[in-house]
Amino acid sequence: MNHEIIVAGKPSLKYAKDGTAEYLKRLTRYGSYKLTHIKDGTSEDVSKRLFDASKGTVRIVMDERGATPTTQELVKLYNKWEMRGYKKVSFLIGASDGHTQQLRNEADFVLSLSSLTLMHELALLVLLEQVYRVATIKRGEPYHRD
Amino acid sequence: MNHEIIVAGKPSLKYAKDGTAEYLKRLTRYGSYKLTHIKDGTSEDVSKRLFDASKGTVRIVMDERGATPTTQELVKLYNKWEMRGYKKVSFLIGASDGHTQQLRNEADFVLSLSSLTLMHELALLVLLEQVYRVATIKRGEPYHRD
Repeated sequence: MNHEIIVAGKPSLKYAKDGTAEYLKRLTRYGSYKLTHIKDGTSEDVSKRLFDASKGTVRIVMDERGATPTTQELVKLYNKWEMRGYKKVSFLIGASDGHTQQLRNEADFVLSLSSLTLMHELALLVLLEQVYRVATIKRGEPYHRD
Repeated sequence: MNHEIIVAGKPSLKYAKDGTAEYLKRLTRYGSYKLTHIKDGTSEDVSKRLFDASKGTVRIVMDERGATPTTQELVKLYNKWEMRGYKKVSFLIGASDGHTQQLRNEADFVLSLSSLTLMHELALLVLLEQVYRVATIKRGEPYHRD
């Protein structure tokens, strides 16, 4: 499957930018992973933009009110989508005040990265590390620590 | 309260080192926050070292099998400990194969940062951002994004 991570706003903290670049670089070995930034704004505006940008894909929406799977459960979910022949999955990270109910309804999966409130840019980092972890597990590789 | 974050092993990834330094620097404005690295090793060895290094403190043990509070619930927990006159709280991050049952039994709180398996160094980063977030909330400050 192809992957697109769509995020409202651009990272401003250096460590978060570096970490994001680090995982995107590693992921090039595992397939197609694209990071797209869309304009930040109100919950309504951002949810609308994320919805439009992810048409025709399996939508995984990051939201504190979502499900809390383990990494292995996430791998199973991936495998299920691949078996069904889905071509593209998108991960949507929204404005700090959350997604609209409408976008959550349109999601194929609502994923909570943590019960704790994470800074936007750190949430992106946690997501990317997880996407990378899933990719290594699916390929049967030991996790690369460095 | 004084804070000590005690971690098995040293971060090796640059972005994680930078992010860790970033939050420790910010936290200097909010009180005493110390990061201590102990030697990595087996679950038993590391749990023993963490236990010894945290004697006489309120122990918060990071473990995937722990509770999943919201940030506000974490703030309430903090306030409770302060009301009780506790002087020092320690956050314990262990080996990748987890803490021993014994250390978890000795914990005042077992905290799960995420249902997902996070790389050690990223877990430290998520914890530090959260400790920083709690500190800003307790002081009634808006969260500092940069």
